[in-house]
Amino acid sequence: MSINALTAEVREQVDTFLQKQLSRHSINEPLTRAMEHGVLLGGKRVRPYLLMTIADICHGDKHAALAAAAAIELIHAYSLIHDDLPAMDNDDLRRGQPTCHIAFDEATAILAGDALQTLAFELLSESPLGGLNADRQLSMVNALARASGSAGMCAGQAIDLQATDQHVNETELEHMHKHKTGALIEAAATIGVLCGEEKAQKWQPHFKTFAAHLGLAFQVQDDILDVIGNTELLGKPQGSDTAANKSTYVQLLGVDGAQQYLNSLHEKALLSLADIPYNTAKLEQFSDVLLKRDH
Amino acid sequence: MSINALTAEVREQVDTFLQKQLSRHSINEPLTRAMEHGVLLGGKRVRPYLLMTIADICHGDKHAALAAAAAIELIHAYSLIHDDLPAMDNDDLRRGQPTCHIAFDEATAILAGDALQTLAFELLSESPLGGLNADRQLSMVNALARASGSAGMCAGQAIDLQATDQHVNETELEHMHKHKTGALIEAAATIGVLCGEEKAQKWQPHFKTFAAHLGLAFQVQDDILDVIGNTELLGKPQGSDTAANKSTYVQLLGVDGAQQYLNSLHEKALLSLADIPYNTAKLEQFSDVLLKRDH
Repeated sequence: MSINALTAEVREQVDTFLQKQLSRHSINEPLTRAMEHGVLLGGKRVRPYLLMTIADICHGDKHAALAAAAAIELIHAYSLIHDDLPAMDNDDLRRGQPTCHIAFDEATAILAGDALQTLAFELLSESPLGGLNADRQLSMVNALARASGSAGMCAGQAIDLQATDQHVNETELEHMHKHKTGALIEAAATIGVLCGEEKAQKWQPHFKTFAAHLGLAFQVQDDILDVIGNTELLGKPQGSDTAANKSTYVQLLGVDGAQQYLNSLHEKALLSLADIPYNTAKLEQFSDVLLKRDH
Repeated sequence: MSINALTAEVREQVDTFLQKQLSRHSINEPLTRAMEHGVLLGGKRVRPYLLMTIADICHGDKHAALAAAAAIELIHAYSLIHDDLPAMDNDDLRRGQPTCHIAFDEATAILAGDALQTLAFELLSESPLGGLNADRQLSMVNALARASGSAGMCAGQAIDLQATDQHVNETELEHMHKHKTGALIEAAATIGVLCGEEKAQKWQPHFKTFAAHLGLAFQVQDDILDVIGNTELLGKPQGSDTAANKSTYVQLLGVDGAQQYLNSLHEKALLSLADIPYNTAKLEQFSDVLLKRDH
């Protein structure tokens, strides 16, 4: 099964929800179009799938999980729009489409990213959010903020910018990825559990560890695909990391070494599910499909 | 009394609090420096002063009001950093200092703005926040998000960008300002009341109307000062709106007409306080000082 087939139902639900929220919460047509371009034009929906699957496993509130999944995807989408800007990674192509500043203009892309971030917190703070109590909801807002801010994703992007054209070792590379992409993937797990029943909360650290290993493995896989992948499937030029002088696991470990590292992370991810007294088969399947993808 | 003298104590409290939170929530030195540059280098602290004064009038929770005041200033600061970017207003000078992308670089300025926005939601969602209950806190998060996103401040900035080099009439100009600056100033009032005691909540619309008139009056005053003000006091070149082909109230109404409009808004602001059964003298003083400022 392909990752896109696995996440198709979640993608459909999240996209329909996002489309509705964007219309409901925006008043300026060009800005709304740019926001839609940023968030609705494809993407695997890895974070929403992880969040909603964990919420489901933990007998969670489905409405809250959908809103939270949309919120986390909004944060991811805003970060991609800003990362693609000329002053950042200067990418013209994303998911096979022109990036936001190419399709619109730089100013609109900056604003669309800003407004997507805000919308994430707006959706998460709406009341009521399914049957969730306000304390849980606040914890979700806080977890999302901590994961995406100056000790999370934004810090990771800053570390990445500072590392371009520099030689970094494996520890530094891992530190960067743990913040740039890992923090938000971990937050998907944390927030998924927060949607769940009370007795699921004690398993928070286990789900989080699973997500941490999965997130890093996903990044190693990305580095491998950048070298051995195919531009058409990837939706971005193959070799673009090398061209941008980005440090990668393949550079540090070689393709085979990176693949071995990926496998060990995959194993650790599965191990962290072992003690959880819920049926985690869907997460095992997810990690299998995700880490064996070809784009 | 000058506006800076009036807000000095609030400024001191908010800046100390922000400095501490920035150290606590950031892990990347260059990013943290850029965030500090954006939020701690001066500014009148109009929004924090309004929020904390209203919270105080409503016998509010002081700790929650301080955190909320810091949060609203973070949103304001992030918007200034992004507005100053070359792709937006392309300003080199802000509050008499080099703007963030001049002092650092564009990529860091974009990221610093992003992370300041996130930090606002992080601070507002910390638990506990003074003695506030979680429902109130969630309402504060939601009010801040609504005011700053795609139906608020970001929409206003988009409208502003689209209006540059266009002739706009008074209705369109007001629509732009109501979103670009008005929404956040109204949110300062809303959130201030939310910090307050239960029976203050019913006066929410009155405080909000006060803030709406005050916000617009503040903007009219800004346009007047851009024409008759002094570069050194303003901290930005006098005449910069005209140079950037921005529509202003002075262009539409002349200096005298703009001054009359300002006076009528000031009166309406004071009128909206009339029925509130709390002592609003400090808000009357604030509007007097703010709207008679020379920079």
